[in-house]
Amino acid sequence: MIRAGIIGATGYTGVELVRLLSGHPEVSLSSLASHSYAGETFSGVYPAQTDLCDMELSVQDPEKVAEVSDVLFLALPHGHATEAARAGLARGIPVIDLGADFRFRDKKVYETWYKVAHPGEDLFPKARYCLPEINRQEIPGTAIVGNPGCYPTSVILGLAPLLRRGWLDPASVIVDAKSGVSGAGRSLALGSHFTEVNDSIRAYGITDHRHTPEIEEQLSRVGGTPVMINFTPHLVPMTRGILSTMYARLSEDLTDEVLREAYMEDYGNEYFVHLLPENIFPRTKWVYGSNHVHINLKADRRTGRVVVVSAIDNLVKGASGQAIQNMNILMGLPETTGLTAAPVFP
Amino acid sequence: MIRAGIIGATGYTGVELVRLLSGHPEVSLSSLASHSYAGETFSGVYPAQTDLCDMELSVQDPEKVAEVSDVLFLALPHGHATEAARAGLARGIPVIDLGADFRFRDKKVYETWYKVAHPGEDLFPKARYCLPEINRQEIPGTAIVGNPGCYPTSVILGLAPLLRRGWLDPASVIVDAKSGVSGAGRSLALGSHFTEVNDSIRAYGITDHRHTPEIEEQLSRVGGTPVMINFTPHLVPMTRGILSTMYARLSEDLTDEVLREAYMEDYGNEYFVHLLPENIFPRTKWVYGSNHVHINLKADRRTGRVVVVSAIDNLVKGASGQAIQNMNILMGLPETTGLTAAPVFP
Amino acid sequence: MIRAGIIGATGYTGVELVRLLSGHPEVSLSSLASHSYAGETFSGVYPAQTDLCDMELSVQDPEKVAEVSDVLFLALPHGHATEAARAGLARGIPVIDLGADFRFRDKKVYETWYKVAHPGEDLFPKARYCLPEINRQEIPGTAIVGNPGCYPTSVILGLAPLLRRGWLDPASVIVDAKSGVSGAGRSLALGSHFTEVNDSIRAYGITDHRHTPEIEEQLSRVGGTPVMINFTPHLVPMTRGILSTMYARLSEDLTDEVLREAYMEDYGNEYFVHLLPENIFPRTKWVYGSNHVHINLKADRRTGRVVVVSAIDNLVKGASGQAIQNMNILMGLPETTGLTAAPVFP
Amino acid sequence: MIRAGIIGATGYTGVELVRLLSGHPEVSLSSLASHSYAGETFSGVYPAQTDLCDMELSVQDPEKVAEVSDVLFLALPHGHATEAARAGLARGIPVIDLGADFRFRDKKVYETWYKVAHPGEDLFPKARYCLPEINRQEIPGTAIVGNPGCYPTSVILGLAPLLRRGWLDPASVIVDAKSGVSGAGRSLALGSHFTEVNDSIRAYGITDHRHTPEIEEQLSRVGGTPVMINFTPHLVPMTRGILSTMYARLSEDLTDEVLREAYMEDYGNEYFVHLLPENIFPRTKWVYGSNHVHINLKADRRTGRVVVVSAIDNLVKGASGQAIQNMNILMGLPETTGLTAAPVFP
Repeated sequence: MIRAGIIGATGYTGVELVRLLSGHPEVSLSSLASHSYAGETFSGVYPAQTDLCDMELSVQDPEKVAEVSDVLFLALPHGHATEAARAGLARGIPVIDLGADFRFRDKKVYETWYKVAHPGEDLFPKARYCLPEINRQEIPGTAIVGNPGCYPTSVILGLAPLLRRGWLDPASVIVDAKSGVSGAGRSLALGSHFTEVNDSIRAYGITDHRHTPEIEEQLSRVGGTPVMINFTPHLVPMTRGILSTMYARLSEDLTDEVLREAYMEDYGNEYFVHLLPENIFPRTKWVYGSNHVHINLKADRRTGRVVVVSAIDNLVKGASGQAIQNMNILMGLPETTGLTAAPVFP
Repeated sequence: MIRAGIIGATGYTGVELVRLLSGHPEVSLSSLASHSYAGETFSGVYPAQTDLCDMELSVQDPEKVAEVSDVLFLALPHGHATEAARAGLARGIPVIDLGADFRFRDKKVYETWYKVAHPGEDLFPKARYCLPEINRQEIPGTAIVGNPGCYPTSVILGLAPLLRRGWLDPASVIVDAKSGVSGAGRSLALGSHFTEVNDSIRAYGITDHRHTPEIEEQLSRVGGTPVMINFTPHLVPMTRGILSTMYARLSEDLTDEVLREAYMEDYGNEYFVHLLPENIFPRTKWVYGSNHVHINLKADRRTGRVVVVSAIDNLVKGASGQAIQNMNILMGLPETTGLTAAPVFP
Repeated sequence: MIRAGIIGATGYTGVELVRLLSGHPEVSLSSLASHSYAGETFSGVYPAQTDLCDMELSVQDPEKVAEVSDVLFLALPHGHATEAARAGLARGIPVIDLGADFRFRDKKVYETWYKVAHPGEDLFPKARYCLPEINRQEIPGTAIVGNPGCYPTSVILGLAPLLRRGWLDPASVIVDAKSGVSGAGRSLALGSHFTEVNDSIRAYGITDHRHTPEIEEQLSRVGGTPVMINFTPHLVPMTRGILSTMYARLSEDLTDEVLREAYMEDYGNEYFVHLLPENIFPRTKWVYGSNHVHINLKADRRTGRVVVVSAIDNLVKGASGQAIQNMNILMGLPETTGLTAAPVFP
Repeated sequence: MIRAGIIGATGYTGVELVRLLSGHPEVSLSSLASHSYAGETFSGVYPAQTDLCDMELSVQDPEKVAEVSDVLFLALPHGHATEAARAGLARGIPVIDLGADFRFRDKKVYETWYKVAHPGEDLFPKARYCLPEINRQEIPGTAIVGNPGCYPTSVILGLAPLLRRGWLDPASVIVDAKSGVSGAGRSLALGSHFTEVNDSIRAYGITDHRHTPEIEEQLSRVGGTPVMINFTPHLVPMTRGILSTMYARLSEDLTDEVLREAYMEDYGNEYFVHLLPENIFPRTKWVYGSNHVHINLKADRRTGRVVVVSAIDNLVKGASGQAIQNMNILMGLPETTGLTAAPVFP
């Protein structure tokens, strides 16, 4: 059994790791570390896990967690991963960081958008952005996995087939994304207070959301040309799910048929990525609780643009599920191990 | 008292007319006609109105309704307004059509997008698209009011100040809109079934939603140049509200300050339209149940685009409230009469 | 114009007072005092009020607020009303306390259930529990109004006609109540965090909720005999509304017809209380945003019990609307002034 | 592999069977029969299953389904199971009926409450009500499983330990239950229309819900004495989940400690049933998507009653999960096979 340690086990991506790993046939949980709840039991914090995971939460001592683990998951706020990553490296075990600290190649980009200093630039050469359906071959052997952000996952998978083929005007990309509230985490804030969120929708992070540079960097890599986007996230009164609606000008006049063929070519053999039938557009509930990605698209010949819509569960494919997918690759397991649960619909 | 008759009183825009008119100091309801519920009481269909509006519903005989009314509201599915409009004209009373039948100048556009024949082209010269904050001066004396659609209201008010000044590249406009489910009406459909909608978001009408030509026609008028847009509506798990997020390329490098001044200039004296303070972006719940419109915007100098966000209650400013606003103008009443209720928040 | 001051203006009952009073034809707001937001504008805290109520929030100095007011509303957490009440008394203006501090006749009951000392027992003779449909005649001249709690309002109105007639076994009453999350207030807590509340229901305060003694005291008064109940509140994923389902053994074999007649007798002339038609049971959305109360009931001859269901909007009839109703009575205005808005449905 | 056939595969309990069985290591789906969608693919009806279950739906011919199956699940409206049950019997394969047709011992009770004739009384001797945690020993060899209703499952498991010990006054039991909307099925109805349900709660089936006699019959069996209850279900704006709040008079003065010991005794070894820690009361989201049951209780010495609260997922433990649990027992598999997925929280 692979012993998995989680640092930051009581945030929403932490508890989702616990949920998914508890059903993983090759993994046992070695240590759950929590800043706020050390000393309590996991099920005391998350009663949904009563009698399923009653482990005592440990203090967030990365070395101690690393000591008893074969893989280290970091589910921490950005800016806090470096120390824990060093502990994993020191033990020679792979580190999978669900936060933003190891997603960028350029420290300046990180510091500009995240507005904190990055204490771990020296680790960048050992870190890699790992989105299996995009760069699967590069993942084995990675010491520090920069696990993709939730919005970026939905956007990169949505646009890659078009960018890869040079079919989009790279200056024309607009991403309008909608997220469930779990994406805002468990920290108390008026913006996540039920009465302020329910029966309402709002935009936030207009022109300056931190996932913007992550999306741009990865789209640029895929497209082989600098891509600059407008990205606007929205908060939707639902628990889970991200729906990204993407607009871009087509560089040539392409039919839906041709477009769909490209997606089938790229994703036809992917277990988790699904091009929906024509005119059936994604709904977040259709991927709820699962690692699946639904995509559809349509060309608008009137305007010369294509509209792509993708849906993921932000806590699974957008975070903890993808982290486990990366772990499977790193550990030489079949990539889908522990991740084949069907979406919970309705 | 102005005697108001409603044809189609038991759909959601109908019941919203009843709710709002029951609080209007100068209006009494003369006749509520319903295709499905004739003979029943209004409160039997909508128990929220128990002891408040217990009128018996009449059959949908436009002439009989017109006979006892000083103004006629049509809250019918598209394609059904012509006969009722003729009845109103025959009695010489103004007709306010909340549907799409009298929103277009060109029958072909209507027939192309709505896919039904229009039996009332001869009435077009008597009809006018009436959005008070855009063309208030043209409204008095209008025989048939083409009351704006919900999405178009939110979009036109959101973009008018920019288009009017020639500040937008007219080929660059993208509108990503999100609506509550009441916009889909009361007719039963799997797409409005609670279990299929709750805790989920989806896009629909991609590249072919019927509000597209209405928005384009009106934006083109305001901008004095043809505007062609991509418009994607979404269904959000909430009862009321539309949030429109709009993107366009600025034709010059304009600061937020300059942009905000333009909105203040255009809307500073409007009772219902509010530019929110910088960085406070609209939420639909903030206008819930009211005729108010919230707008904010931000320039993105990185990409040369502006992002505008507007929020309305689809059943009020997006339908019945705006219809009453138009009625007030037609009847020579202060425009805000009966419409000053504050939003219901929380 | 009556000048109304609100102490505690930025909690949910405070903002609801502002919403309702801003539509009251005889009232102007004199001072809005806030512990947390003094110095900010009201619309800065509640952007739903942008351009509608932009008053600056004052510090919570009861004397200063009382000085400029003809009536004082206290929308404070329990335990904080005494000082403010004294300030009102000193100025000779009526005080309407929306909290629990003046709802009890017996200080011990208060201190047992609320677990704080009560510094204002000397004011009890000047205070009175005021629920207009129950004790309207006693209200005029009251110096300190103990405005009823939200759950108690729904329960007392639901059971009074039966208790008054001695039709219930007083030891058999069970109240199972369900509330929207606004009842928990605006203070941040995990129990009101969207992600923990959405798509879920839970019970709380089992056997020890503080509204229990308030309900018991008032039901005992109405019934003229001690009533002891089981009361269990629940938190429902909705913003507003309380639905109370009440069970009690009938002391005689009564038909639905006889039961309904009793309710019609008691409430037939009440503007805000409505007995729904047979077999149409209340839904909270049917009273949303309004001061109305919906009630229905059914005898179960199999078990000898009656089931009563009542619905209110917890922020209106359950708090701020009822407070204004009490103010109207105190000020000699028609009781419904400013409160006639129809429910917002859908 | 056990070949499982489902008749009625496209209702919500049908799709839930598909979801759960697709993760069951010993089962393959043999035939999915649908009245409304025969000829379409399963994923065409439920796009959440795209690429996961693309089987073609067959017509509802019980004999043909039985022919290719080792076990037959019936997920049909009540009144339709008899013919299919006969087909299973004829093939000698076990039949698991998720509907109400085989839950009663007395045809008259069924016909009184369900208001249809029952064409299969002759099959009653072969049928048995199977709730594993209550009568596990009786299940092996059962030809027709009467799979318990959703509400009854939550109530029987909640009260059994008390009734079994004779601790409750059998005439004092009151059950106030709350369900998500999926319990109302996928058939279109105004009562399940999003706009009518969202942000609202209501009671229904007052004094005459069909689960009443099922609960009474089973509680009477467990208690060894006739139990007659008041049962009131409510519709909550959530997709899944049932919370039952139960009240009964204790026949002796029992402490919480003693009560809890009884539950631990009965359920301590049950994989799916969990007594929560003191004062932590169930929430439906804590069992979302899982076969788990959460229970807690508290004595109220003031009133001499006990309050029990239980939570299940109505589609899993309340229907399809329990059906699979019964199948596991019938087929000699470990009872938890395929059912160990943790709840999806948040």
